Amino acid sequence: MRMYDIIKSKRDGKSLSKEQIDFFIKGYVDGTIPDYQASALLMAIYFKGMDIKETTNLTLAIRDSGKVLKFEDIGGVRVDKHSTGGVGDKTTLIVAPIVASLGVKVAKMSGRGLGHTGGTIDKLESIPNYKTDISIEEFKNIVNQTNLSIVGQNSELAPADKKLYALRDVTATVDSLPLIASSIMGKKLASNDDCIVLDVKTGSGSFMKTVEDSKKLSKLMVEIGKNAGKKVVALITDMSSPLGNAIGNSLEVIEAIETLNGNGPKDLTELCITIASNMLFLAGKGSLEECEKMSKEAIYSKKALETFIKTVKLHGGDCSYILNTSKFEKAKYTKEVLSLKTGYVTEIDAEGYGLASLMLGAGRNTKEDKIDYLAGIIIKKKVGDYVLEGESLAEMYTSDSNAFDLAVKKYLQSTIIGDEKPKKPPLIYDKVE
Amino acid sequence: MRMYDIIKSKRDGKSLSKEQIDFFIKGYVDGTIPDYQASALLMAIYFKGMDIKETTNLTLAIRDSGKVLKFEDIGGVRVDKHSTGGVGDKTTLIVAPIVASLGVKVAKMSGRGLGHTGGTIDKLESIPNYKTDISIEEFKNIVNQTNLSIVGQNSELAPADKKLYALRDVTATVDSLPLIASSIMGKKLASNDDCIVLDVKTGSGSFMKTVEDSKKLSKLMVEIGKNAGKKVVALITDMSSPLGNAIGNSLEVIEAIETLNGNGPKDLTELCITIASNMLFLAGKGSLEECEKMSKEAIYSKKALETFIKTVKLHGGDCSYILNTSKFEKAKYTKEVLSLKTGYVTEIDAEGYGLASLMLGAGRNTKEDKIDYLAGIIIKKKVGDYVLEGESLAEMYTSDSNAFDLAVKKYLQSTIIGDEKPKKPPLIYDKVE
Repeated sequence: MRMYDIIKSKRDGKSLSKEQIDFFIKGYVDGTIPDYQASALLMAIYFKGMDIKETTNLTLAIRDSGKVLKFEDIGGVRVDKHSTGGVGDKTTLIVAPIVASLGVKVAKMSGRGLGHTGGTIDKLESIPNYKTDISIEEFKNIVNQTNLSIVGQNSELAPADKKLYALRDVTATVDSLPLIASSIMGKKLASNDDCIVLDVKTGSGSFMKTVEDSKKLSKLMVEIGKNAGKKVVALITDMSSPLGNAIGNSLEVIEAIETLNGNGPKDLTELCITIASNMLFLAGKGSLEECEKMSKEAIYSKKALETFIKTVKLHGGDCSYILNTSKFEKAKYTKEVLSLKTGYVTEIDAEGYGLASLMLGAGRNTKEDKIDYLAGIIIKKKVGDYVLEGESLAEMYTSDSNAFDLAVKKYLQSTIIGDEKPKKPPLIYDKVE
Repeated sequence: MRMYDIIKSKRDGKSLSKEQIDFFIKGYVDGTIPDYQASALLMAIYFKGMDIKETTNLTLAIRDSGKVLKFEDIGGVRVDKHSTGGVGDKTTLIVAPIVASLGVKVAKMSGRGLGHTGGTIDKLESIPNYKTDISIEEFKNIVNQTNLSIVGQNSELAPADKKLYALRDVTATVDSLPLIASSIMGKKLASNDDCIVLDVKTGSGSFMKTVEDSKKLSKLMVEIGKNAGKKVVALITDMSSPLGNAIGNSLEVIEAIETLNGNGPKDLTELCITIASNMLFLAGKGSLEECEKMSKEAIYSKKALETFIKTVKLHGGDCSYILNTSKFEKAKYTKEVLSLKTGYVTEIDAEGYGLASLMLGAGRNTKEDKIDYLAGIIIKKKVGDYVLEGESLAEMYTSDSNAFDLAVKKYLQSTIIGDEKPKKPPLIYDKVE
């Protein structure tokens, strides 16, 4: 078998066999297939696509490129959730404790932020002393104690994905449905949970800009998951605005704790209840309605918060911050973003808000960049809110006061103010199962 | 400027600017742009194409990636010819001496064979002691004495083409009109002759399988050449059968010498006269008719042969072989290919004949392979000829008798024998100017 023929077949619109896909992934990971042949194939896939059989085989090859987790020593059902990434998306910090507090195991590996989107691992690391790079054994031990552990992506899992993603990132081959789906599902299948709830974000702040594209991606991922013997549902949710009001790592942790205390923003709380219900439902905890009731109860009883606190402690984190969020250090500089017009906020470019937060130091332009955990934005006016000229739209936080000028400019550019009160988009567009 | 954005633009079907193309070629040659980004761009070009402006700019960037020859010390008009490559194509060995003997300079750089097609440089090297790797100064000196010199491609000319071609070869991005045209014309423009006659081969033995594709390529190359200030015509010629009867290096040199002696095969002689006439015409030697008459005269008067002999001598070659071709060493083993059927040769797969010759040792599978100069095939029956079962279709020559089995099989597979006398395809399909 020759990589040349595999590239040529795909270029000519043919379907690749399981053997061809395995040959590619194995050879690419072990270095016998060079980057330049891999990128030519990726570009051919970008143009010619892959059918469901090919995409499933690619996903399985990515899964099998490294270790696949085994959980014989953990009893019960394990549920995972995955968000395709957005701005202000701190749902994992809320959803995982809810589900875990109700007896379902959440042994979760999460990513770091890049560009305008944040990552759960960065957020957790803003809790003093929280360790995200513990061993698989410690990870399992914690899950066995609190039903919950959240750690960084293990480098022994799905190494093909890491290598492929880095290559796609510099060759303009990221925006390809089969490549996106196999990348997400390859990693998920390597963590080998029984059930997966996919949160496919749609709109200006997400990767998928239209509901239609999100639906295609959702269908593809659900089918791949089922082909691999997992229970999977996908929720298509709104990311035309950031989720909640906080963007930035410690700011988002504080908002997540408020939500676990029952005082969270409405949109964030509602979405978290929906995701948690679906996770519990897949795990067989009851009907969707029952699961929703349980999820709400887990918040109002503070059971979920309790599980979160215990888990943070087992990760070495300082729980006093969770109990009293005013202990979180404040950024050195703050600035109000004042509205230049009077009217309704009719539209938000969520990606623009994410980029403004990135400019303040809350994110990374490249993987090597350091994060300012205290930097970020508290949004004060969202879509549908009325604002007066000179009134505050948001408050910005940073350790670098030079960052304000550009960040404020970006924020204002990303906030459309008009005369008519707009219709709010739905929080959840659709469900694919 | 970022290579990522260049790839993305082309992927999205946009035209690349001159600045973007220059950035790519410069960066690729100096190593700041890695192979994996180059191959992604090449695949995007494969799918999205390039317009004439982009293709011209790419050609000029390839030309300017290295040295561009200067000929202030050579007077008069210089004419080049280029064949897109075929089986048994020894026209340069005949055409160049004809044109040179008539006072037009031919300072020619030629390539080596690869795969089923042969290369002029390999053919010349089958003349004992002929040196093809002389300095540019020696090259010009010889041109000043006989109007003719044929040497190997200088590595300082168009280095971008060499690097790009090697990459295209392993990433299935060879078959792209703008990439083919810019590769050929980039090299031609670096040798900087005043006029160029392009011989675009069409049919089973060539790169372009249809007249239509050949016409597209011809138009593109002629336009690029004109945009670069050169006089250019393209002839679209038949390669559904090998040219002449000999395939293989010393066998083809012998056939070329016979043709220069006026005893060549009809198709080969006719094509050489046409190409030579067009070269002379571009050089301003008279009307096409007059140039054709002169070309024939150059053969029958042996003036062209004389020029060839003098040139070979100046390259260190042993001229006694030209004067007496029976001096050429014979291959150790010969074998007749006997027809399995009675009937007319209705069709030939010229690529198959080229591959059979390659199997006998006359060609290279990879650039590193050594050539057996004595190996090859003498075709005895061509399209339209009648053959009896058991009669000889061809004679094969090799130094490795084990090669016969596969080569004979390939030859027979590539020869279709039927009941009806076929119509011969035209030798020259079209002319683009």
